[in-house]
Amino acid sequence: MENKNVTQKYYAAKGIITNQMRKVAEKEELEPEFIVNEIKKGTVVIPANINHKKLDPIGIGFPLKTKINANIGNSATASDVKNELKKLHTAVHYGADTVMDLSTGGNINEIRDAIIKDSPVPVGTVPIYQCAAEVEEIKNLTAEYLIDVIEFQAKQGVDFMTVHCGILKEHIPLTKKRVTGIVSRGGSILAEWMSYYNKQNPLYEEFEKILEISQKYDVTLSLGDGLRPGCLADASDEAQFAELDVLAELTMKAWEKNVQVIIEGPGHIPFNQIEMNIKKQVEKCFGAPFYVLGPVVTDIAPGYDHITSAIGATMAAYCGASFLCYVTPKEHLGLPDEEDVKQGVIAYKIAAHAADIALERKNARKPDDEISEARIKFDWKKQFELSLDPETAQKMHDKLLPDEYFKHSDFCSMCGPKFCAMKISKSVK
Amino acid sequence: MENKNVTQKYYAAKGIITNQMRKVAEKEELEPEFIVNEIKKGTVVIPANINHKKLDPIGIGFPLKTKINANIGNSATASDVKNELKKLHTAVHYGADTVMDLSTGGNINEIRDAIIKDSPVPVGTVPIYQCAAEVEEIKNLTAEYLIDVIEFQAKQGVDFMTVHCGILKEHIPLTKKRVTGIVSRGGSILAEWMSYYNKQNPLYEEFEKILEISQKYDVTLSLGDGLRPGCLADASDEAQFAELDVLAELTMKAWEKNVQVIIEGPGHIPFNQIEMNIKKQVEKCFGAPFYVLGPVVTDIAPGYDHITSAIGATMAAYCGASFLCYVTPKEHLGLPDEEDVKQGVIAYKIAAHAADIALERKNARKPDDEISEARIKFDWKKQFELSLDPETAQKMHDKLLPDEYFKHSDFCSMCGPKFCAMKISKSVK
Repeated sequence: MENKNVTQKYYAAKGIITNQMRKVAEKEELEPEFIVNEIKKGTVVIPANINHKKLDPIGIGFPLKTKINANIGNSATASDVKNELKKLHTAVHYGADTVMDLSTGGNINEIRDAIIKDSPVPVGTVPIYQCAAEVEEIKNLTAEYLIDVIEFQAKQGVDFMTVHCGILKEHIPLTKKRVTGIVSRGGSILAEWMSYYNKQNPLYEEFEKILEISQKYDVTLSLGDGLRPGCLADASDEAQFAELDVLAELTMKAWEKNVQVIIEGPGHIPFNQIEMNIKKQVEKCFGAPFYVLGPVVTDIAPGYDHITSAIGATMAAYCGASFLCYVTPKEHLGLPDEEDVKQGVIAYKIAAHAADIALERKNARKPDDEISEARIKFDWKKQFELSLDPETAQKMHDKLLPDEYFKHSDFCSMCGPKFCAMKISKSVK
Repeated sequence: MENKNVTQKYYAAKGIITNQMRKVAEKEELEPEFIVNEIKKGTVVIPANINHKKLDPIGIGFPLKTKINANIGNSATASDVKNELKKLHTAVHYGADTVMDLSTGGNINEIRDAIIKDSPVPVGTVPIYQCAAEVEEIKNLTAEYLIDVIEFQAKQGVDFMTVHCGILKEHIPLTKKRVTGIVSRGGSILAEWMSYYNKQNPLYEEFEKILEISQKYDVTLSLGDGLRPGCLADASDEAQFAELDVLAELTMKAWEKNVQVIIEGPGHIPFNQIEMNIKKQVEKCFGAPFYVLGPVVTDIAPGYDHITSAIGATMAAYCGASFLCYVTPKEHLGLPDEEDVKQGVIAYKIAAHAADIALERKNARKPDDEISEARIKFDWKKQFELSLDPETAQKMHDKLLPDEYFKHSDFCSMCGPKFCAMKISKSVK
């Protein structure tokens, strides 16, 4: 029923500029008219659930600056509410534009509630995680239950939700020749369910109901990639692209109901296949914002996947992705703790910012020029201040030269007092 | 005098396949005939000083796998022989293909001697650092003294040397509008000298003498980029490319004497300018191996420049660079210690390997496929073993699940026992 619709896309379709659009326009240094038009086209979303009271809205889409997401949340083996709030604060402090609460352990509703109440940034979830956590076995899941949980979370104020509506029964045989099979948790749960009942994906079958809920609370749908590759060997395969075709179809259906949509993408992709992957996705899905997990560009560096994936993420954002889901050093090894969250966010701020500069987005290079000015002036305090992580920068500088005197000196321990190139260079007539 | 020539390029020109060429061919899984031909063309070098007795030779060039260099060495404020040897061992342990000893503090000759004696990988230096360290003021430098130090180091067994022969007096005014001026130490020293005396660069004037020394010991010349940009704002400017023209001229001169040459490049470059930079350099310098420092793709992340630069380095290697000089987390802040060396080397192993995969070099993806197989088998020990940094991978895994039991379990703390996608995926019929 169109009269229940409260989505930003609905308002955009009517030509109404909302407060959220104004705030986004201001943050992006763009005109509100531009924002409303892009939302209407579907190339920009503002994930802003009407029940997320503390939200300071942001926009996601290729016409805007690149955004990054930090996953937090517990698993059955670790974490609690207090710890998750700490991770939230750390993520936001270092510059995450959104967080996703991926809790699968205890106190799921309580943790989510606390996060939404506390978070100034959009909060995302993967509702099927809660469903699977609350049943004994995957076969006990039902379509009604999945929809109920989606509605419950929507009502709580979740701004965007990953729903794996695109993985179909017909796709499962395509994964049999893969090295690492299905590595999306949502995808694997649905695959098991479909195999057990020999029935179609309930989230695909009930997509209309999901759209109704989205209209009612303005939940932005993040169409999940249940068949994303889990290793380089499986990248860009038939299964991955078969699902993408369905995501394109669902994008159109969602847009018909003025529901905001982003599209999820892989995962593990060799560096030379990133451009092709991104362009294919953006083109197939009519320019809907593309949300990538990394991608990691090699499988051999567990413990350093914030780096392997920041490399892929920079390339992805440069080629057209607009939303980067961070990967922490703990990926493939364990649940990230607060320090991993920090490392992941900083690596992704670097990736997003490097892409914004490369795309020559408005004023993107300004902070770089400011820190470079501070460098040539040997204004160390300013350099630290302008850094993505001032404490770490200062700590590293101070390790060998802790004295206050060296905060004004025209050299650091790298070159020593006699050999600073910039110092010599300044003296050259 | 041609009869004194002992360079790999000299032998290649004569069609002689040396032991070094055979070893390189074996390591690269290529034919010796291919290697000798590429060396003859100048597209591959084997830095192998006849006095570096312990050397296990490697080849550098775009037809081969991407190589990485780790800078070690002290500055006036920190370090000694023992510490530098520790850094050498750490660098080689984690996979550095070469090391450069950039010492500028005390005991320079002693440290270099110890490093050469101990190092199985090619050792590089920047002789002008020693010259500048040993004089009171830059104006006290003389051409004779510069050449003497180059010869002394060549005799010691240095395999490759950075010589800033390409920065000319005429280039200095071009740096005046730069934000950070000249950030190459060698470049700034020579610029000061040229300004003081109003004379041409002595390393340019005496290039013939440098070639004679190179012929005698087989020193590979790394033609330094004294005018590399030190921030994004200065990237791809007139000064940078003016020097490049001179490097091209010197490459041809060196090749006429059968001296091996690599070309150095920047530095700080926006991601979108990397391809242009690499292609220009490779083309101008007739395919001579291109040795890049990073490049970093944003200036705002001191403390994380191993990441900002690994992003640039991957792109650079993908576009045609064949030799990547690492950047450590301490870059712009201080002298790297052993842990920084490790972090730098691992970030660059990732970059080089990701590029080799992307370029579809022979068997490049093999280790990735092996670790992916271990992942789907939940063979945790094998996963750690196949990682770039096994200890770190295991430490992260064990943080939440330390018990031996979990080394054989089909889940980790990321998903917990109920939610491992790969585990569920394996059960899907």
